[in-house]
Amino acid sequence: MGESIYLAGFGVSLRVKKNSFLIFADGNKDTISASKVQKIVFLGSGKGVSIDAIRLAIKYRIPVFFAYSNGYPYAMLFPVVAVGTVKTRRAQYEAYNCDIGVELVLGILKGKLRNQANLIRFFWKSRKRTAPDLANRLKENAEAIKYLIAQLESIGSDRIDSDFRRKVMNIEARAAEMHYWPSFSLLLPTGFSFEKRVKPNAKDPVNALLNLGYGLLFMEVVKEVIYGGLDPYAGFLHADRSGRESLVLDLMEEFRQWCVDRLIIKLLSIRKLRPEEIMDGPKIRREIVGMFCKEFEDMMGSVFVNTYGEKRTMRGHISAQVLRVKRHLLEKEKYRPCIFMW
Amino acid sequence: MGESIYLAGFGVSLRVKKNSFLIFADGNKDTISASKVQKIVFLGSGKGVSIDAIRLAIKYRIPVFFAYSNGYPYAMLFPVVAVGTVKTRRAQYEAYNCDIGVELVLGILKGKLRNQANLIRFFWKSRKRTAPDLANRLKENAEAIKYLIAQLESIGSDRIDSDFRRKVMNIEARAAEMHYWPSFSLLLPTGFSFEKRVKPNAKDPVNALLNLGYGLLFMEVVKEVIYGGLDPYAGFLHADRSGRESLVLDLMEEFRQWCVDRLIIKLLSIRKLRPEEIMDGPKIRREIVGMFCKEFEDMMGSVFVNTYGEKRTMRGHISAQVLRVKRHLLEKEKYRPCIFMW
Repeated sequence: MGESIYLAGFGVSLRVKKNSFLIFADGNKDTISASKVQKIVFLGSGKGVSIDAIRLAIKYRIPVFFAYSNGYPYAMLFPVVAVGTVKTRRAQYEAYNCDIGVELVLGILKGKLRNQANLIRFFWKSRKRTAPDLANRLKENAEAIKYLIAQLESIGSDRIDSDFRRKVMNIEARAAEMHYWPSFSLLLPTGFSFEKRVKPNAKDPVNALLNLGYGLLFMEVVKEVIYGGLDPYAGFLHADRSGRESLVLDLMEEFRQWCVDRLIIKLLSIRKLRPEEIMDGPKIRREIVGMFCKEFEDMMGSVFVNTYGEKRTMRGHISAQVLRVKRHLLEKEKYRPCIFMW
Repeated sequence: MGESIYLAGFGVSLRVKKNSFLIFADGNKDTISASKVQKIVFLGSGKGVSIDAIRLAIKYRIPVFFAYSNGYPYAMLFPVVAVGTVKTRRAQYEAYNCDIGVELVLGILKGKLRNQANLIRFFWKSRKRTAPDLANRLKENAEAIKYLIAQLESIGSDRIDSDFRRKVMNIEARAAEMHYWPSFSLLLPTGFSFEKRVKPNAKDPVNALLNLGYGLLFMEVVKEVIYGGLDPYAGFLHADRSGRESLVLDLMEEFRQWCVDRLIIKLLSIRKLRPEEIMDGPKIRREIVGMFCKEFEDMMGSVFVNTYGEKRTMRGHISAQVLRVKRHLLEKEKYRPCIFMW
């Protein structure tokens, strides 16, 4: 599936020689063949790109993202010629008004909650001997989320209306606020605190890293959605957020826990970083952004197993999941979320 | 409405200082405030752009296009946050299956044919004394197109099906092949010949200039379509061309004659260019591309009057026309084509 080029440093420039990208950074030159690249991400300002590099990216169907240094992408570059047909998007719009949309929302949310519970149990395993009290609280939270999943299964509707949306959003919010984020907070190393999610302009290192990670995940998912011929703006669960890529946000729900949340707990624990080493005032330091992108990329290329026994790289799981959404919308095949083994 | 920055020369680079774009070309530096720019177009290779320039463009909602030197855009850069709502695109998809789509196709084609006839009459005016024989043939062609418009008015259908499409495409092809392009050919200065339209990789100067002009027109229209919240890929007349911006192609139909065809006849006549001065082997010379972009931009900013007495810049007419399509799709308001006075 190729690798990602993340350009976070100051003064970096991306150019071209024949069919390879040249990365000029700190007086060094790196060469990477275009056929091995799966996306290009510019993070932060103070960089340049040659038009030939943009043309080479398009020739190889490599999407190019431009993001703030906090990971929030503000622009995307895609080929003028679209993939897929209008047929897929037409099916996507029609699904919103019938039970196909309802089933997709329930499938995605079930996947999200099961991945939350499984991630908590994953950390419970390693804590049950070393920190039995903490482990007990984790276990209780995982059980509580399982109970909410059962409630989700009792909800039905013939279309996505405000009553349906209110019910599922309520269950999602209870899982997140009462059980998932409190567990996440317990798993952070000493020195880090986490009270609640702060989305734009987070100044605390944990929220800033979560936002960076979700920004990177967004770029992985939006690429698959656009190349899959789906309309990124026409979502189901997040349908009310006009102007945002609500379908991408929907699809991210199943992947946030294992792609981003787990990575952050792991990195903060293993690297023994102190909060002040991460932030430079209200922003994540450039070196930390670069390090995080590298770790994220390694995770995307690592093999994970889901509850169906499918062994794939994380990138492969995301790609397979977008295909499942398409088959659900076009062929009414029952949507099956991707749940990772703990 | 601001102006366009066309970057066609070799070695040009686009950078930023505060809220202005800096254009470095041939050792010179040009400064233009971002608030005055309405789009940025890179034509051909051998150039560069700073990430800060891309960020400034996005901040001011300025689309950035990357085109081959022949004018064909291969990539577009747009903000991640979309304008408009899913509602518009939903209406667009629904219109395809009912008479709303049929009326739009008929309106657009009527507009196209009337603009063809009017452009021929526009040139007839100036030729009727100096070249009466040629003028007579022009007049006959304009009359023949008017006759085809009357035929178009007798076509009806409750949806866009293959029978309807075949009928309208047949009338469109007869107008183009038998009357419009033969008139266009008669209007070219000596030394230029035009047998038929050649779309990609045209090697003769007239087709190469037409392709360049339509490429520039495409960028004007796609910008309005995307910012208007419409799906550029879901067209009506050109619906069968999957993977292409078929709605943009539909909307271009009314504007090709007065934006591009007229400009080419004018430029070739006034500038007294010889064919070999235009082409450099199979490509248009860089200086000619630059000159053409400048003339195109002047035309876009010039005032034209349509048959409803509306005086607007050409850019204003295009923008108004996209709004009319939206009102037709969303509010079922009868679509009214934009026909220019001869």
